[in-house]
Amino acid sequence: MSALEKRILSAVAIILLIGSVFYLFGTQGLFFLGFLLASLCAFEFAGINFSLNGAPKSISLLFLALNLLVLFISARLPNTPMYFLAGSCCIFVTCSLWMLRGACDNDTLYRVINRGLLGFLYVGVFPALALRLMVVTNGLPWFWFLVAIVVVGDIAAYFVGSSLGKHKLMPDVSPNKSWEGAAGALIGALAVSVLFKFWLLSEVPSALVIATGLTASITAQTGDLFESLMKRVANVKDSGRLLPGHGGFLDRLDGILFGAPVVYIAYVYYFETLLA
Amino acid sequence: MSALEKRILSAVAIILLIGSVFYLFGTQGLFFLGFLLASLCAFEFAGINFSLNGAPKSISLLFLALNLLVLFISARLPNTPMYFLAGSCCIFVTCSLWMLRGACDNDTLYRVINRGLLGFLYVGVFPALALRLMVVTNGLPWFWFLVAIVVVGDIAAYFVGSSLGKHKLMPDVSPNKSWEGAAGALIGALAVSVLFKFWLLSEVPSALVIATGLTASITAQTGDLFESLMKRVANVKDSGRLLPGHGGFLDRLDGILFGAPVVYIAYVYYFETLLA
Repeated sequence: MSALEKRILSAVAIILLIGSVFYLFGTQGLFFLGFLLASLCAFEFAGINFSLNGAPKSISLLFLALNLLVLFISARLPNTPMYFLAGSCCIFVTCSLWMLRGACDNDTLYRVINRGLLGFLYVGVFPALALRLMVVTNGLPWFWFLVAIVVVGDIAAYFVGSSLGKHKLMPDVSPNKSWEGAAGALIGALAVSVLFKFWLLSEVPSALVIATGLTASITAQTGDLFESLMKRVANVKDSGRLLPGHGGFLDRLDGILFGAPVVYIAYVYYFETLLA
Repeated sequence: MSALEKRILSAVAIILLIGSVFYLFGTQGLFFLGFLLASLCAFEFAGINFSLNGAPKSISLLFLALNLLVLFISARLPNTPMYFLAGSCCIFVTCSLWMLRGACDNDTLYRVINRGLLGFLYVGVFPALALRLMVVTNGLPWFWFLVAIVVVGDIAAYFVGSSLGKHKLMPDVSPNKSWEGAAGALIGALAVSVLFKFWLLSEVPSALVIATGLTASITAQTGDLFESLMKRVANVKDSGRLLPGHGGFLDRLDGILFGAPVVYIAYVYYFETLLA
């Protein structure tokens, strides 16, 4: 199977999966699916980041247990309380110091702590914001907006990049990405924004919809690069092996994770500031 | 000046400073002082963590600007919104990728991103929770409780550790700390808890006060070890040089930072669950 076929197949699979779950089980089903996918991303994150010299498997388990808490509470409680996140960080740092002392050098220990705390944000808070869009009042159109920006941007980047791509974007991190592809993703996101302005987000000011679309496209592309960087540092090719031939879940969802905070902030700004 | 004299002098200076600001300017003055100290901690954190090969000075400035936003918003807004933190992380990662691409290797780039996101928690959200205790309804007794646990625990650890200390706690990270000193800090925190139960927190259940005191003492000691680890990895002795001979602000406040989430969670649990 060619790279293009794989890409189309996995895009179709994602759309079919999300669409049918939403059709059959409604918002709650969608939330459950999202929660499951976010947990799989966290699982892959732990696999990539905690396989350091001397770091025991129990660190991954500790991270995953605490991250599940961060993810669930951030996604479910109305005020997204920061102190739960802070508390999880305290527990993680305390346990890491005890579990790893003597077992690895200081540099590795500091890295493990850094990666754990980054993880609570990257595979805890970020997906939680995407999940919140599914359950907050009038949030669902914004969730579809986020998904469309990322999926359409990804496809546009691929086609524009592979036909016109000449100038490398960040060759050390992701050798196949080009400036032309990045511009293609932005144009795709612009098209999605215009579509949503006339469809699901028709009451939202045009400037806000377009600014959100473009900004989320930039951060989603950052998410893609960040994920590549993470894999390069860990020296792995795919984030996971649960989807043979298609990379891992994190490979597919990296854009959604980094786009989510932008769209969520736009959502809150619209409902709490513009409409207040 | 001996280590003991330094320790006593800086403890007295801290107490005099906090006490006189509170006496003269009330809660708002205390908040302002706390905000200033937290910003100085962030400044020291950036100095320690972003002096990596190839990382330009602008990364520190970017971090500090975004962290000021995280700190202020987390400390001031009632619902401590997680999406501001997430948004700052997105901006930091995006800018880091652009500013550092080509300038340093992938490993350094990933470290810079890790440390930035850890920083938003460690010198952004953590101090913000201590600051919030000063301004929320009935929060001030809990703030004094936090300060007392850390200060008394620190003094107790020093005296017990230097007279009875035999068994090293974590020699690779902090060669002078002993299990005896850690036990001393816990006993000090227990004494503080009993005092507060009969004084400022008399209406709070004993079990909650004591559990909070002991847990906060453990995480505060973790904070101390974590700060030592950070300095060791960066190969610096003091976190800053603004207080000659006394280490930096981060050296003095590391316990408060890690104790804050525990005390804040206990505060919220008491007022929103037990009294609700």
